[in-house]
Amino acid sequence: MIVRGTAAPRGDAGPQSALQSPAGPAEEVVIALRVMKFGGSSVADTEKIRNVAIRIAAAREGGDDVVVVLSAMGKTTDGLVALADEISALPAPREMDMLLSTGERISCALVAMALHDLGHEAASFTGSQAGILTDGAHTKAKILEIKPERLRAELANGRVALVAGFQGVSAERNVTTLGRGGSDTTAVALAAALDADVCEIYTDVTGVFTADPRIEAGARKLPLVSHEEMLEMAASGSKVLALRSVEVARLHDVPLHVRSSFAQEEGTWITKETPMMERAFVSGIAHKSDEAKISLLGVEDQPGVAATVFTALADALINVDTIIQNVGVDGRADLSFTVPLPDLRKALDVIEAMGDRLPHRETLSDDQIGKVTLVGEGMRSNPGIAATMFRVLAAEGINIQMIDTSTIRITVVIARSEVERAVRALHEAFDLASEAERRGV
Amino acid sequence: MIVRGTAAPRGDAGPQSALQSPAGPAEEVVIALRVMKFGGSSVADTEKIRNVAIRIAAAREGGDDVVVVLSAMGKTTDGLVALADEISALPAPREMDMLLSTGERISCALVAMALHDLGHEAASFTGSQAGILTDGAHTKAKILEIKPERLRAELANGRVALVAGFQGVSAERNVTTLGRGGSDTTAVALAAALDADVCEIYTDVTGVFTADPRIEAGARKLPLVSHEEMLEMAASGSKVLALRSVEVARLHDVPLHVRSSFAQEEGTWITKETPMMERAFVSGIAHKSDEAKISLLGVEDQPGVAATVFTALADALINVDTIIQNVGVDGRADLSFTVPLPDLRKALDVIEAMGDRLPHRETLSDDQIGKVTLVGEGMRSNPGIAATMFRVLAAEGINIQMIDTSTIRITVVIARSEVERAVRALHEAFDLASEAERRGV
Repeated sequence: MIVRGTAAPRGDAGPQSALQSPAGPAEEVVIALRVMKFGGSSVADTEKIRNVAIRIAAAREGGDDVVVVLSAMGKTTDGLVALADEISALPAPREMDMLLSTGERISCALVAMALHDLGHEAASFTGSQAGILTDGAHTKAKILEIKPERLRAELANGRVALVAGFQGVSAERNVTTLGRGGSDTTAVALAAALDADVCEIYTDVTGVFTADPRIEAGARKLPLVSHEEMLEMAASGSKVLALRSVEVARLHDVPLHVRSSFAQEEGTWITKETPMMERAFVSGIAHKSDEAKISLLGVEDQPGVAATVFTALADALINVDTIIQNVGVDGRADLSFTVPLPDLRKALDVIEAMGDRLPHRETLSDDQIGKVTLVGEGMRSNPGIAATMFRVLAAEGINIQMIDTSTIRITVVIARSEVERAVRALHEAFDLASEAERRGV
Repeated sequence: MIVRGTAAPRGDAGPQSALQSPAGPAEEVVIALRVMKFGGSSVADTEKIRNVAIRIAAAREGGDDVVVVLSAMGKTTDGLVALADEISALPAPREMDMLLSTGERISCALVAMALHDLGHEAASFTGSQAGILTDGAHTKAKILEIKPERLRAELANGRVALVAGFQGVSAERNVTTLGRGGSDTTAVALAAALDADVCEIYTDVTGVFTADPRIEAGARKLPLVSHEEMLEMAASGSKVLALRSVEVARLHDVPLHVRSSFAQEEGTWITKETPMMERAFVSGIAHKSDEAKISLLGVEDQPGVAATVFTALADALINVDTIIQNVGVDGRADLSFTVPLPDLRKALDVIEAMGDRLPHRETLSDDQIGKVTLVGEGMRSNPGIAATMFRVLAAEGINIQMIDTSTIRITVVIARSEVERAVRALHEAFDLASEAERRGV
């Protein structure tokens, strides 16, 4: 049982006070509602499943209402995909969804059984039973609406509701799946629909770090980042949270808490609020090593050429990321952009097939690039960050091939072989280890 | 495409004419509707799944509408049960159903993919999506109603509908499973609801035999048996079809065709019609070796004693089969009955616990019994069959411990060690090998 101000809309008081602050005089006792999401590594075997149940039971015993979203056990989904691959080179998306949606249901049933043995009432639900209505885009469906009445009734009856992640039901009453990062998205969307106090994402790391700890040994866990920072980090290579789940969290102002399934320590809170914002120039460093660069040199500078290129690539389902264009003195432009490495060949084919519709001198490609991104709310008011970043990289002898910025992010494209060195040098230069400690109130 | 009389209600023309007879002058061309059910051994791996798809495709290419019911792949269900056992000693039935229902869905999705690659339109459906409404008795639900509108729409659109067997949905919108033999029951119930021309049960044997071919090498496949005969055979130990599915078939007059997944030959037809009835005294011999006998000697002959015993056993979920009672000259009775061998200990405990409520002299039990059953529509008008049976067994020196009869069945309880010899002697005496050939028109 926790206490929060009755008049305060969710988020205004900050998640930590909502879950932890003592009762003030004008406050009313309210049951907190937690959505807890456990990923595949957290339910990889029956022993881990029992540990997850213990974790959920502790939350219930603390007095909170609990909705749990579960992924499929360990490599279950990979196994199902392999079965489909054995059957067909191009399995129908609707059938892939029928197939893949089973893994999360198995997890839910098993966790429910484990909770029963701990003396808690619990029931499992498919995405459809949980009221998760999606569009009909099989294998990559989007959630259109959540009808949470059934889950609310379960909670009102004192039961833990276990919801199969990554899935829903279409208007045509077919099973759909949400694609990559689907279970995170299920959890955040349910938290929004149920007006939950927090959406806890349990994973195999203890939170969001200032940089990848496998590259920078001094990387520290960030106690608090903003939704926008997390969005930029996820888009720039951080794998802790699926990008689309962060988008949903930002849109509906859902406080997220990313933490470890295997440790009790607090993880990283991701909220609208960033009380530390004044001090934080840079929150963290993200990187990517799975992209390639294409450059179109000497493109005739006529209206619509760029649109033509990017429409053709989009039609081929190729996800173009960073784009830069320089117009030269001769009225011709150089257009460079990045694509996922596995799509490079297909992208070059699309460009070649355009022929005369894309008048240009030469196509170059580079499959040896990487990206390093600085993210921080503090950049909004500190334009000097970019200059510092470029100076640090120059001092390391690292050549910058492309630059792309937003108000709270700077991304540079460099040689892939230099990514790790760049991450370490920037982590040191911006003193991120100390910054993380300053945030840890 | 087949032809059947428009005015003839299903079954009147017999299944073979319904599927095979040429068009008569007063007949209208009607698409035949087949329900095809494939068991777990028929979809045990991806190669077998492709073979099942080829079989279904051939049915479609012959012009029939096809609804397919599938079991889970091979030992999938056993694997899921083992997972549940690892988690909990007493898993909740509702969660077992959520867990176990996934296996059949996987089979359906994979067969759909394989059919697509063969150029056929097909879609998979859960029990719920197929409109199979059950009661709420989890892990042993009964089908209450089938709403076949969605399947009908699929058929009207030229698609093969693949339905996950063994499952449905309760009025409380929970996933339910039908218990043992559930997929057979799904198939027969769907065939009844859709008014199908035939329900084909594909399995790993080629049909129903006059006796177990592993015991009697001369056992022959029966081309045709009646629903009632099959019911008696299933109740008496034949494992080809689940008893409850035969009950549904008889109740709704669904013609069944039991045949092999791995061979093209005709199997055994099971219908209301038995055109050969006049000639057939005995259709087949079934046997059981997994029961035990309990005898209560010197039971005081007062009203209600038998009811008290069998109510107590039923309350303990012990399935009592054959019962006989002899009243002796002293006004005391001997009551004997059989129970499943694994339940013998529990049954004896129940009886002991009854104490004075069951006044009798002595309790005996025998865990070394077996049963041999003759089944045949011809017995209705041929009371001499029993006498022949007893004479044959006497000539073999086999002692009959109990006798139980219905209008088309005679069951004897004998020593388990003599079951195989009894089966062979009776098969020979009633000339069943020739009888099977006579039926094979």
